[in-house]
Amino acid sequence: MPEKIVPRSKDYSRWYTDVILQAELADYAPVRGCMVIRPYGYALWENIQQALDRRFKQTGAVNAYFPLFIPQSYIQRESEHLEGFSPELAVVTHGGGKKLEEPLIVRPTSETIINAMFARWIQSYRDLPLMINQWCNVVRWEMRTRLFLRTTEFLWQEGHTAHAAAEEAQEEVLRMLEVYRDFSENEAAVPVIPGRKSEKEKFAGAVASYSIEAMMGDKRALQAATSHNLGQNFARAFSIQYLDRNNELQYVWQTSWGLSTRFIGAIIMVHGDDQGLILPPRLAPIQTVMVPIWRGEEQRQQVMATVERVRQALGDGLRVEVDGREEYTPGWKFNHWEMKGVPLRIEIGPRDVERGQVVLARRDRPGREGKTPVPMGELAHRVPVLLEEIQASLLTRARDFLEQNTVQPTSHEQFKAIVAEGFARAHWCGDGGCEAQIQEETQATIRCIPLDQTRGPGRCIRCGKPAKEVAIFARAY
Amino acid sequence: MPEKIVPRSKDYSRWYTDVILQAELADYAPVRGCMVIRPYGYALWENIQQALDRRFKQTGAVNAYFPLFIPQSYIQRESEHLEGFSPELAVVTHGGGKKLEEPLIVRPTSETIINAMFARWIQSYRDLPLMINQWCNVVRWEMRTRLFLRTTEFLWQEGHTAHAAAEEAQEEVLRMLEVYRDFSENEAAVPVIPGRKSEKEKFAGAVASYSIEAMMGDKRALQAATSHNLGQNFARAFSIQYLDRNNELQYVWQTSWGLSTRFIGAIIMVHGDDQGLILPPRLAPIQTVMVPIWRGEEQRQQVMATVERVRQALGDGLRVEVDGREEYTPGWKFNHWEMKGVPLRIEIGPRDVERGQVVLARRDRPGREGKTPVPMGELAHRVPVLLEEIQASLLTRARDFLEQNTVQPTSHEQFKAIVAEGFARAHWCGDGGCEAQIQEETQATIRCIPLDQTRGPGRCIRCGKPAKEVAIFARAY
Repeated sequence: MPEKIVPRSKDYSRWYTDVILQAELADYAPVRGCMVIRPYGYALWENIQQALDRRFKQTGAVNAYFPLFIPQSYIQRESEHLEGFSPELAVVTHGGGKKLEEPLIVRPTSETIINAMFARWIQSYRDLPLMINQWCNVVRWEMRTRLFLRTTEFLWQEGHTAHAAAEEAQEEVLRMLEVYRDFSENEAAVPVIPGRKSEKEKFAGAVASYSIEAMMGDKRALQAATSHNLGQNFARAFSIQYLDRNNELQYVWQTSWGLSTRFIGAIIMVHGDDQGLILPPRLAPIQTVMVPIWRGEEQRQQVMATVERVRQALGDGLRVEVDGREEYTPGWKFNHWEMKGVPLRIEIGPRDVERGQVVLARRDRPGREGKTPVPMGELAHRVPVLLEEIQASLLTRARDFLEQNTVQPTSHEQFKAIVAEGFARAHWCGDGGCEAQIQEETQATIRCIPLDQTRGPGRCIRCGKPAKEVAIFARAY
Repeated sequence: MPEKIVPRSKDYSRWYTDVILQAELADYAPVRGCMVIRPYGYALWENIQQALDRRFKQTGAVNAYFPLFIPQSYIQRESEHLEGFSPELAVVTHGGGKKLEEPLIVRPTSETIINAMFARWIQSYRDLPLMINQWCNVVRWEMRTRLFLRTTEFLWQEGHTAHAAAEEAQEEVLRMLEVYRDFSENEAAVPVIPGRKSEKEKFAGAVASYSIEAMMGDKRALQAATSHNLGQNFARAFSIQYLDRNNELQYVWQTSWGLSTRFIGAIIMVHGDDQGLILPPRLAPIQTVMVPIWRGEEQRQQVMATVERVRQALGDGLRVEVDGREEYTPGWKFNHWEMKGVPLRIEIGPRDVERGQVVLARRDRPGREGKTPVPMGELAHRVPVLLEEIQASLLTRARDFLEQNTVQPTSHEQFKAIVAEGFARAHWCGDGGCEAQIQEETQATIRCIPLDQTRGPGRCIRCGKPAKEVAIFARAY
């Protein structure tokens, strides 16, 4: 039997780590705060990459690669940006056996180095818009780390764009926010609230930051992706100028947007249960696992022959694994693949072979309820349909959970109770003082100011003054 | 007009750099020895990655990700390995604003950190073979750098495998060498000589190293990929042991294998000409570019309508670009896309529209000779065929060049003349002394001892003693 994982309800935080280690998504590295992404976790990341990369390229963005090392002076050039990062930097002081004249920073994000190149490449309005994405590793010296959620090194993509007009940049910011929302909901089955960050929560180098915010299984928030309007902050710091159609020099308007391996943490926490992971079919490295059941060699051969036929019938379009290992029992395998979150299991025993059927078991509905016998002739049709049904049902379940646990408070007292165990959708005066006091009292922060502002006028949930807008308050990862 | 590149014959080294910069494959980064891979170069790398990754996965290897940082003590644990790398290391001494207790090395290769994890994951013969590949960046503090060929940071893949038996490891080493040969010849049209490295040239941590060696346009050699038999060197240094079927503890046998962005340098130097790049169709980011020709708005609309129809007819299976820019002349565009090495150009002018034809121009045969008028109805069929023809013809041309410039010397004097401008396939006594003297006299090194040893017995080209084997000697990048 695989090792047990602690129940979610008993210790959510340990459950999370247990699932990652037992499902072999990742492992602790022998370097402080770093992790190893194991093949099963990396295959999930590869599927995330493909789903995003396709969407990025459809918007006209192209991929490129910029250096890992950034001269220290670059980071200092954009001072607000530096403030946000200085305590988090890893510094290379020696190279080739010698002390370096200027220390090099291991990139915590690439705005500075990319914009130094943009300044070289952008000369004319004909060079705009310039829309570049990079898949890479970045390093932030985190004090308290957790697998996937917060590690010293992590993988991500960072998009960086330059535009001729402020409005174009803002359009790009919202376009990419929508790309992330679409990816999150339609590939990962993770429902999100898209919105703007408050002044206090935004990226230090940005004029305005946007994010998609998801609700984890313990009702805490997780920022799943960000999209920043950088205005002309970096353009001025790095002199990124172009000649417009009237032959006049102008600074460009810029954006950056990113999603990281942290997103894997969201998938785990949104869908997982006491049996372990539950992966959304569109991103699952293994969509269907076939578990043959037999006693003795004769039965084994008979069953395995059928398994092979079924696998052929399912075709190349599906990611199918056959677990024909002889050293494990079917029961062990059921647990094993449930822990790994494979969305659909196909059980084939001697009786099934006789009857010309198999049993399909849905990972999202454990026990009898999720099991259906299906004639073999229908499998090639039924399995893809069922996978889409599981995909849809995961999204619906997570969306219901998010909606049920997002409450509009009518009083300050009620507000405190709500953010103790969920999201509060509350009116806010827009003042940073109220925001800070709320955080001090409840640990809840403004996750975002939703794009959807259709709740009408109201009064600030903290000070009672007329509200500027509605915000989502919650405790966050 | 695009800026001119210096002719290959006049200054090969400047030609190489000119092509990279003008074709926008890469640019110098503001960090010493580092480069930026621009979108066009990165798209080429993505195609290389896909072609390799597919082959790796077919052998049963899976991808994973290991940390960028390696504790200094790990690098010291495998002492021969250290010797090979110590002058090349970049060292992180500060993190999070503090001096680190133990400095961290930015990975120059990942044997040590990966094997530390293998020691944790491998317990039983059931865990073997373990075959993991990683796509990542690595850093080696090079003194003299050149775009793609030798940069402080570069991108690569590194495969790491562990096996129960020595023979299995050796099979894996040769299997992966064959994967690289197949990729190189059949995707990049770069013919290579697969062989074993001499004791002097092998990877410090390996028992035996193998490589594929290619001949550049200036007749110098370039090591295009390597595959190492690590024996039990790392297994013993990192205690990677497993319980065999008799319940006895055994050390594993290991391999590692890699190919880097350096390979892009080989593609440039093998195929390029005075007009710039020539890309093999299977890897080219743009396989076919359509250049419309018109005078005046009426003609433009007419021609562009036909261009659109042709693009539709070519379908989604091809990577096609339409250059409909109005601010450049057709002549400028011809030069531009020739410099970028696009294998096939489709010219469509008003007369072509009238006649219901287009003109196809092959990049590998400049001038009239490479131009053919083709009826539009045949395009969807002819273009893919022609691309395969170009692919094959590039390989044949490069193979002829390699064979014509690989000569078997009959005397020591002749040997010296041969390695001054090509490869010598020469008998060698197997003694490191002769190898060193040859290098001193001619700058030529043993590129590899070819797997193909069918030349029969002979005498060492340097000392005249009975030869142990035949080796390829050449000056190398």
